[in-house]
Amino acid sequence: MKQYNLAFLGFGNVGRALARLLVAKSVELREQYGIEWRITGVASRSLGWLTKDGANAAEGFDPGSLLSAQTLKESAVSSAGIDGWLRQSQPDVVFETTSLNHETGQPAIDYLRATLEAGAHAITANKGVIVHGFSILSELSQAAGKRLFFESTVLDSAPVFSLFRETLPAAKLRGFSGAFSSTTNVIIETMEAGRSFEEGLKTAQDLGVAETDPSHDVDGWDATVKVCAIANVLMGVKLRPIDVAREGIRGLDARKVQAARTAGAPFKLMARARLGRDGDLVATVRPEQVPISDPLGNIRGTSLGVHFELDMMPGLTITSHRPNLQSTAYGMLADFINAVRTDRP
Amino acid sequence: MKQYNLAFLGFGNVGRALARLLVAKSVELREQYGIEWRITGVASRSLGWLTKDGANAAEGFDPGSLLSAQTLKESAVSSAGIDGWLRQSQPDVVFETTSLNHETGQPAIDYLRATLEAGAHAITANKGVIVHGFSILSELSQAAGKRLFFESTVLDSAPVFSLFRETLPAAKLRGFSGAFSSTTNVIIETMEAGRSFEEGLKTAQDLGVAETDPSHDVDGWDATVKVCAIANVLMGVKLRPIDVAREGIRGLDARKVQAARTAGAPFKLMARARLGRDGDLVATVRPEQVPISDPLGNIRGTSLGVHFELDMMPGLTITSHRPNLQSTAYGMLADFINAVRTDRP
Repeated sequence: MKQYNLAFLGFGNVGRALARLLVAKSVELREQYGIEWRITGVASRSLGWLTKDGANAAEGFDPGSLLSAQTLKESAVSSAGIDGWLRQSQPDVVFETTSLNHETGQPAIDYLRATLEAGAHAITANKGVIVHGFSILSELSQAAGKRLFFESTVLDSAPVFSLFRETLPAAKLRGFSGAFSSTTNVIIETMEAGRSFEEGLKTAQDLGVAETDPSHDVDGWDATVKVCAIANVLMGVKLRPIDVAREGIRGLDARKVQAARTAGAPFKLMARARLGRDGDLVATVRPEQVPISDPLGNIRGTSLGVHFELDMMPGLTITSHRPNLQSTAYGMLADFINAVRTDRP
Repeated sequence: MKQYNLAFLGFGNVGRALARLLVAKSVELREQYGIEWRITGVASRSLGWLTKDGANAAEGFDPGSLLSAQTLKESAVSSAGIDGWLRQSQPDVVFETTSLNHETGQPAIDYLRATLEAGAHAITANKGVIVHGFSILSELSQAAGKRLFFESTVLDSAPVFSLFRETLPAAKLRGFSGAFSSTTNVIIETMEAGRSFEEGLKTAQDLGVAETDPSHDVDGWDATVKVCAIANVLMGVKLRPIDVAREGIRGLDARKVQAARTAGAPFKLMARARLGRDGDLVATVRPEQVPISDPLGNIRGTSLGVHFELDMMPGLTITSHRPNLQSTAYGMLADFINAVRTDRP
C-alpha cells in the first residue's frame, strides 16, 4: 500500500468530477491497486495556489470541503506560484486541467515542465499541451522517470494513446480519420432537422459540449488540435495546427445539409491524416459527406470516434458514445493508475 | 537483448501466418523490444512432435523450410508427445492454434497446462480453451509467474482483453453486445440480395471465414463461445455455452430478411450479455433486427465488433474491419511482446 500526494492544477468541471471519482472509487483503488491518496495541492484562477504540507500533513484537503470550496481558503497555505506550490504540496501526481490555449499550449506546458522536474507524474486533459509541448515534455518525462499521460484529450475517455502504447505493440499507424467534434455534429444535425446554425450552437452549449469559445469547434480548431496530437504522438511526426488544411462548418448551406442527410450521406466535420508514399503526412479537417456505411458513418450527436489504418490490421475503429464529464475524469483516473503501476519501488 | 525459444502447437493457417510475421517484424522486434527469437518446436497432426534441442541448438528451425515443410522432418528430432516435446524444445513461449473443441476445449487445455507447468508463456487463439479452461489455466499461470494471453480469440486481432487489462483499470463491465460472426453476416447479406442461404454459406467458405464445420457458425455456437469467453474473463462469472439462450440463423425467412434490410434494420446474429439487478448474467445469441444507428449497426461482411457498457463510460465500441489471417497472427504477436515485456529478469 502506498499513499500518493495528488495535486490539481485547474479545478473546474473536469477537476471536480475527478475529485468525486477518486472518492467514489477509493475502496477499489485500495483493494485492487494498493493505492491510497490524499490531495495536497489545488490551484485555480479563483482559488489561487493552495497547498497542504505534503511532507507532514497527516491528511490532505477534505474532498467534501474542496468540492464545496467553503472552508477551503482558511485551512490552506497559499504559495506564490507553481514552484512554491509544488515544493509545498510535494505531489506524486499532478492533474492538469487548465484552460486550453490552441496557439501555444501555455502556460500549461511550463506548469507540466515544473511538475516533471519536481519528480511527479504529469497527467493532463489539455490538448494544447500535447500539440505544442509533446516533444519537450516527453523527453523530460523520460529523463525524470515519470509518466506524461493524456488519455482524456481526444475521445474524452476511450483509450487511444494507451491503446497503442499497451495493446498494439510493433504495429504501424498509416493513417486515421476522426469524428472529433460533438459541437459540429449537434449543429449539423439541428440544421438537418430544418433549424438554424445558431439554434444548433445553442443546443450544443446547453448540452455542455461546446468549448468556451465556440469558434474553436465551429472553425475546426478543436478537431485540428486533435489531429496534431494523434499524429505527433502515434506517428512520430511534428505536425502543427497551421499545417492542417482546415475548413470549418460556417460555410455549410442549410439546404445542402438537408439534401445530404436525405441522400444517406450526411455532412460531418471529418478529420483525416495519412502518410503518403513519399513519407509526408497530409492532414485535413473539413465538412464531408460521410455515407452511413463508413466506419464513422453512424457516429451522431455527442459521440466521438476514430478509425485507424494499421500495417497489421485493415481497420480498427474506437467509438465513445455520449461521453460525459465523469468519462473525461475517468480518463485521468486511468492515467493515474497506469502511471503509478509502472513505478519501480 | 534476450533470445526466446518459440514453439508452435498447431501449424495451420494461423500458425504459418504468425511464423511469416515473426520473420517480417524481426528487425523491429530486436530494435524496439530487445527480442531475438528462434523456433525450437513445431507440432501438428501432419508433422508430429518436432523439436530442436532448446538448450544447445545454435539455431532453431529455419522459418523458410518450416513454411515449405520440405526438409523439415529429416532435420528434426521427433518426440512422443507434449511432455517430451516441451522438455526437448525448452520454449519460453508456446503459440497454441490447434483445432477448436467447443464442448470441452480439449486436448488444448491439457497442452497449455503442460506449457505453463513447464515455465513457458501460453498464447492461444483457441476460444474453447478460454471458455472451458480459463479458471484453472489462469490460476496455473499466476502460480507459474507466466502469462496466459488470448487476444486473437474474439475479434481476431482488435484488442479486447488487453484493452481491459491495460487501458481500462478500475472500470466495471456491466454488459456487452457483439457482432461476432462473419459467416452469418455474409449469409444474411447474400439472402438480402435475393440469393439463397446455401449460396451465402458458399461465399463465406470461399472468403475463408467459415469454420471447418459451418454449423458452428450457423447455429450460433461460435458466437456463444465468444460471449462466454468475454463474460468469464472480463466479468468474473462462470458462464457455460449451455447457459446461453442460443438461436442460429437457419430459421430466417428469405423474404423477412429482405424486408428487414429495406426497412433499414437488417438482421444480424447478435450476441448479448448483461448483468441484471440481482447480479445474474443473462446471455443470448440470436438473429435480431439491428437499426443502422445501433453502435454495431454498420458492421457488415467480414467485419466484427463489440460494444461495451461500463460504469465509467456510457458506451465504448471496438470494430475490427475485415480482419485477415495476418491480423489474427498479429494478435498472437502482440500477446508475445506483451507477455515477455512483463518478464522480470
